[in-house]
Amino acid sequence: MSKTTYYFDNAATTPVRKEVLDAMMPFFTENYGNASSIYEVGARSKNYINEARKIVSDAIGCYENELFFTASGSEADNWAIKGVAYSKKSKGNHIITSAIEHHAVLHTLEFLEKQGYEVTYLPVDEYGQISLDDLKNAIKDSTILITIMYANNEIGTIEPIKEIAKIAKEHNVIFHTDAVQAVGAVPINVHELGVDMLSLSGHKFNGPKGVGALYIKKGLRIDNLIHGGAQESNRRAGTENTPGIIGLAKAIELATTNLNEKIERVSKLRDYTIKEIEKRIPYCRLNGHRTDRLCGNVNFSFRFIEGESLLLMLDLKGVAASSGSACTSGSLDPSHVLLAIGLPHEIAHGSLRISIGYQNTKEEIDYLLDILPPIVERLRQMSPLYDEIKGDL
Amino acid sequence: MSKTTYYFDNAATTPVRKEVLDAMMPFFTENYGNASSIYEVGARSKNYINEARKIVSDAIGCYENELFFTASGSEADNWAIKGVAYSKKSKGNHIITSAIEHHAVLHTLEFLEKQGYEVTYLPVDEYGQISLDDLKNAIKDSTILITIMYANNEIGTIEPIKEIAKIAKEHNVIFHTDAVQAVGAVPINVHELGVDMLSLSGHKFNGPKGVGALYIKKGLRIDNLIHGGAQESNRRAGTENTPGIIGLAKAIELATTNLNEKIERVSKLRDYTIKEIEKRIPYCRLNGHRTDRLCGNVNFSFRFIEGESLLLMLDLKGVAASSGSACTSGSLDPSHVLLAIGLPHEIAHGSLRISIGYQNTKEEIDYLLDILPPIVERLRQMSPLYDEIKGDL
Repeated sequence: MSKTTYYFDNAATTPVRKEVLDAMMPFFTENYGNASSIYEVGARSKNYINEARKIVSDAIGCYENELFFTASGSEADNWAIKGVAYSKKSKGNHIITSAIEHHAVLHTLEFLEKQGYEVTYLPVDEYGQISLDDLKNAIKDSTILITIMYANNEIGTIEPIKEIAKIAKEHNVIFHTDAVQAVGAVPINVHELGVDMLSLSGHKFNGPKGVGALYIKKGLRIDNLIHGGAQESNRRAGTENTPGIIGLAKAIELATTNLNEKIERVSKLRDYTIKEIEKRIPYCRLNGHRTDRLCGNVNFSFRFIEGESLLLMLDLKGVAASSGSACTSGSLDPSHVLLAIGLPHEIAHGSLRISIGYQNTKEEIDYLLDILPPIVERLRQMSPLYDEIKGDL
Repeated sequence: MSKTTYYFDNAATTPVRKEVLDAMMPFFTENYGNASSIYEVGARSKNYINEARKIVSDAIGCYENELFFTASGSEADNWAIKGVAYSKKSKGNHIITSAIEHHAVLHTLEFLEKQGYEVTYLPVDEYGQISLDDLKNAIKDSTILITIMYANNEIGTIEPIKEIAKIAKEHNVIFHTDAVQAVGAVPINVHELGVDMLSLSGHKFNGPKGVGALYIKKGLRIDNLIHGGAQESNRRAGTENTPGIIGLAKAIELATTNLNEKIERVSKLRDYTIKEIEKRIPYCRLNGHRTDRLCGNVNFSFRFIEGESLLLMLDLKGVAASSGSACTSGSLDPSHVLLAIGLPHEIAHGSLRISIGYQNTKEEIDYLLDILPPIVERLRQMSPLYDEIKGDL
């Protein structure tokens, strides 16, 4: 197996930044106290956790008492959705989502369907965006929750979150957004957006794995997902993961400082990559929206090839990229996201996601752009379909 | 606030051992890949996680495909209990537990009671042990789960797990044990014990916070708690917390190597502490069982004093100890465990838990034994009740 040198899978995970790791280190050793203990080494942890909560809250524009640490974005999504489902059962059993959500949302909803809840899966257009009219039409008296992602993890499309929040509010329905891909890539202020709940995950913006957070609007009471001790204001049990929480705070602080400059720089790399691939490789299709798109996301379908073979060939050249979500690897099914935007199975299979991070350079992109066309061509030579098409030309 | 120098709260949490932190470090930076990705830096993470799974499985005597990583002991408890409750609903709705479980178990069960499940809380004797006859009598046709802790976190009492497992098996009922306090302190082999599920937590044996595991016996299918991606064989979603998992494995390996020697050494310190406290401080009562007891646990009630004041005075002398569970701090209620073993409220309030870890020395214990009696005496001087009693003598 080759050694990964060119890492373009920042939507899957990111390396921990040195400043983040440095901030975490003392909390493994000298500051190890249980934050729920009253003696000095415990109280010290508590103070640092409170500081971290302030930093994360400031980064997304909420109050400190609206921010609850979890162990992952998936846990935050599960908590938000099941928490509303169980606590608002007397009000209704209907939930609205989109067809292109992350599996942390979709599989949670499937579980609730087995328990008698009713779920509407809004379709998306060819760019991956829901229709606000569809949303309005789907709301009924029994609707207790709308959960729509901020930005899609595969194709990078950004949903109209502020408009969705407005509609939700008009109909008195709780609105949760899975912002795992958006935090650190889009300026976010939950109060201005008007969302009621928002999930985020530390390792998506160069923080540690194993820590996330859920914003829950002040006054909104939902059932707990993890019951037990009195941690997180009695709302999420388990000894506080102090190093993880400190690391998440440092990472979000770094990721959201000068965010607009970073977005500009990464967007340029993205647009360059898109333009060059379209120029150099025939029979390709950009998936997702051209402008309402995460700054680091590039997603193409290449006809007549298998995405997995493409990834393996890239890996041999030291390039890490993805065919879609890392969370669904091992499955032979094509991406539900690509199917939802209307791609046929055989084209959805030949897809490549390049997710650019703050640490990627133009030189790295140029390397990718050099090796990608011959790899695609070589794989196409193996396809009988490609021969036929070429014969037709 | 003083600086904690003498740490006797190892049942609340423990510092990460240097070897553990060293093992974790590369997984924050160079080995950062998403373990569910197919390229090199991802596959490398996957391999290390598989090695870690083997180490943890070996340490508790199960197969690798029976071991699932979680973010905490609390999550493992929630998963085990809700997982059985939801998946076996068609079989029955009755669950048996004990009155002295950790809140991660008790509050999970209270949540299920709200959803229509029926829970029997077995009483315990004055030492904190359940009666096997009570257990047998409590089992009925609708019983789907028995969840009894391996060892109590406050008073250290060890329950008759093997005998409970036998009874559960005879009645075809699933048996889960919360072994968060026991792993690393008692030799455990889940297959020999005959338990169906077992929860453990990394930070209780000098591993990192934010990682735990649930053993689920091969063939036992329970509902997921965290739905989403295909991680952990499709049973627990969320990007793998690689550094945490590696740290947990290293910690359990260290904790269970030469475990019997460690138990002997720590038990001696415990018995010395108990003997000296009984000798030096009048009106005290050892809580828990004298022999069926965790090697590091000492728990005393001192009449005529407030536990919290005692902890604050100890803290001023650089000693970290606890009045019970860190997870319930902030609550003014006396410990449910001490009430369950028959202590009146006013005596339960005056309790002290000293939990000794592998790193504690006899010199540290001697310091504690020197400062404790005058502190207790000084606090008692402030109690009008103590004056009356002394007058009676």
